[in-house]
Amino acid sequence: MNKLEQLYEGKAKKVYSTEDPNVVIVSYKDDATAFDGLKKGTITGKGAINNQMTNFLMQQLEKAGVPTHFVEELSERETAVKKVSIVPLEVIIRNISAGSFAKRYGVEEGIVFDEPTIEFSYKNDDLHDPLINDYHAVALKLATWDEIDTIKKYAFQVNDFLKKTLAECGVTLVDFKLEFGKTADGTIVLADEISPDTCRFWDSKTGEKLDKDRFRRDLGNVEGAYQEMARRLLGK
Amino acid sequence: MNKLEQLYEGKAKKVYSTEDPNVVIVSYKDDATAFDGLKKGTITGKGAINNQMTNFLMQQLEKAGVPTHFVEELSERETAVKKVSIVPLEVIIRNISAGSFAKRYGVEEGIVFDEPTIEFSYKNDDLHDPLINDYHAVALKLATWDEIDTIKKYAFQVNDFLKKTLAECGVTLVDFKLEFGKTADGTIVLADEISPDTCRFWDSKTGEKLDKDRFRRDLGNVEGAYQEMARRLLGK
Repeated sequence: MNKLEQLYEGKAKKVYSTEDPNVVIVSYKDDATAFDGLKKGTITGKGAINNQMTNFLMQQLEKAGVPTHFVEELSERETAVKKVSIVPLEVIIRNISAGSFAKRYGVEEGIVFDEPTIEFSYKNDDLHDPLINDYHAVALKLATWDEIDTIKKYAFQVNDFLKKTLAECGVTLVDFKLEFGKTADGTIVLADEISPDTCRFWDSKTGEKLDKDRFRRDLGNVEGAYQEMARRLLGK
Repeated sequence: MNKLEQLYEGKAKKVYSTEDPNVVIVSYKDDATAFDGLKKGTITGKGAINNQMTNFLMQQLEKAGVPTHFVEELSERETAVKKVSIVPLEVIIRNISAGSFAKRYGVEEGIVFDEPTIEFSYKNDDLHDPLINDYHAVALKLATWDEIDTIKKYAFQVNDFLKKTLAECGVTLVDFKLEFGKTADGTIVLADEISPDTCRFWDSKTGEKLDKDRFRRDLGNVEGAYQEMARRLLGK
């Protein structure tokens, strides 16, 4: 499978067309951004780790009954995935208060919720990805009620699976962001990535942050955190 | 029934204790604020209109099956209501895009939704009443799932009733904000007010704004709009 034309370049990935109209190739970059693009940097090796971690988790999730866009890992940084139209909703699951949630609602980080929460952000750079609820998403025709029900169901399944898998590696899953896409036939599948860029991982014993917050908050040893997560989850 | 001690002074109302520990007296002011308190002014006669309009509507809503805090109208500006602890969620129903919704999601005003939307804001001045969803409200223990289900059910009932009642007066109900309270025994009742301060009313034929947007947006004839709504709804 070959990369033909570059279709899109995002903050952390490029997407290329292939000979197959239903398949695109995703290429993971080492570029890192935070705070709505205001902070920029490079995390050496991040692209390769995020690619392989995402693929490992998506293959497991498929087995657990969550359809994904994954087709085939092509190289360290590149993966063939189903071509989808992305549902313009970022889906965030939280098990513990942190980040924008703690700030928005004036609570400390680290509150363990009785049950996980789910929220949507409207994927729109000009509007700075505002929080949106399911009624608004339907009113603005960003998704149908059926699609939202499906997305919520899959997102909570992903949370159950990830929490368990990470706990076995000594990692607490604080929160994470998912994106979903629709294939040509309208099927909703998990897309984008699952990585230290898109999840908050805390060492279960020490509470040490093993995710992009090390970059956001200038905590140092950013590369080391990504490598540690690769070691624990992928054994490399 | 007599006012004893002032318990609270808000932007548009004062609340007093009475001899009855389960009843308080609400006194409506002519003070108007907008934009999170940044804009201040006076709308002469507003307090009397909002008091009487709220009482008229709440009495009708009681008959339609929505429990309210209303006890007895005491004077032009004062009403005895059940003492409640306010659920710290502003409940907003929208039939048509306008105001903060249009701004937040980058859409024009006036989009008629296929079905009404509901949203919650966390009542917290320091945090500027941020948008919050039901999962978050439960996680932060602002309300229980049962309370939220009850509030949603009542809010949509209020919308159905208000839309119909207003349509008969030649007014389109664009959106509105409700607050709910819990009585001593935990019953959820509609509280606060229903008035041109808390609703967007558009003349059904001309689209003329007959609500607080005239104050917010310096459209002139603010008092006239409140009086026109009183005339149409209350016949005075």
